[in-house]
Amino acid sequence: MTSPDPALAELLNSRIRDVPDYPKPGVLFKDIAPLLADAEAFAALTRALAERANALGATKVVGLEARGFVLAAPAAFAAGIGFVPVRKAGKLPGAVHGQSYDLEYGSATVEVQCDAFTPGERVLVVDDVLATGGTLAASLDLVRRAGAEVAGVVVLMELSFLPGRERLGDVPLEALITV
Amino acid sequence: MTSPDPALAELLNSRIRDVPDYPKPGVLFKDIAPLLADAEAFAALTRALAERANALGATKVVGLEARGFVLAAPAAFAAGIGFVPVRKAGKLPGAVHGQSYDLEYGSATVEVQCDAFTPGERVLVVDDVLATGGTLAASLDLVRRAGAEVAGVVVLMELSFLPGRERLGDVPLEALITV
Repeated sequence: MTSPDPALAELLNSRIRDVPDYPKPGVLFKDIAPLLADAEAFAALTRALAERANALGATKVVGLEARGFVLAAPAAFAAGIGFVPVRKAGKLPGAVHGQSYDLEYGSATVEVQCDAFTPGERVLVVDDVLATGGTLAASLDLVRRAGAEVAGVVVLMELSFLPGRERLGDVPLEALITV
Repeated sequence: MTSPDPALAELLNSRIRDVPDYPKPGVLFKDIAPLLADAEAFAALTRALAERANALGATKVVGLEARGFVLAAPAAFAAGIGFVPVRKAGKLPGAVHGQSYDLEYGSATVEVQCDAFTPGERVLVVDDVLATGGTLAASLDLVRRAGAEVAGVVVLMELSFLPGRERLGDVPLEALITV
């Protein structure tokens, strides 16, 4: 599902700033800082994510380090459920599941704690951007290996010129904005 | 101010897990993952932070990457105000202020966007742990250089055997838990 709410998409889009040539020449970076700083837009985003969590019957919201934390943690609070972080390798104590994925040059690993979920939990996974889908696909694997069901994925922005959506399988996926 | 609410401190403390010898031998790591995963405790924490933001007349909540994001962003939503991230060097696009601080070995730099605040804004700065105070002290400098007033600081945990509090000057500082 894409852009389910045109008025919300317009509000959110109006608070995202284009930064040319960041982090490298030729890349147009979508800066969400103005959106986060705007109380009205930030609240509308948070409520939309929380409604999605509740509609899917989610018992946890999972956020991906670091910008995903900023969206997922408020959504968990607003939905009245708990929050679970997926972090970069080496940041979580205790027993963890790890999943590597390819980057443009080299690879990276994300981790989740083995005891993050109780059996039967349903999870909404939240991140800021769906680009190539590498981090999100690895995170969905982690959630399942930790014993939870992926009830759905919501991203603030989907870059439709990249094939990220295809890497996530048939999980319910919603993008609040498509660019 | 320390532990202003003993019942809240007891609830939060009961959801923090001690992990011995992490990230290195001899260190007792305070893992807040069980707290974040517990809907009741996470909501109580978020409401306490939001009440503090509103009591101080804050117009923004500032969170420090990355665990501070998980506490500060929900607090901003619950307080009805916006969120501003302080990030590690090289993560924020556009013009930034940077501030370096000493680590045990070497140094690190945190940054905030130059246009993060409008003149006259009052800011609540939130992080998970006050240890040596290096990151927090640098972040307070950044907030002021970006034109805002630091109305107060709240940390979830203060490590009272370390002198972090002394490095923050006379800013109103509240620790929800002291260990």
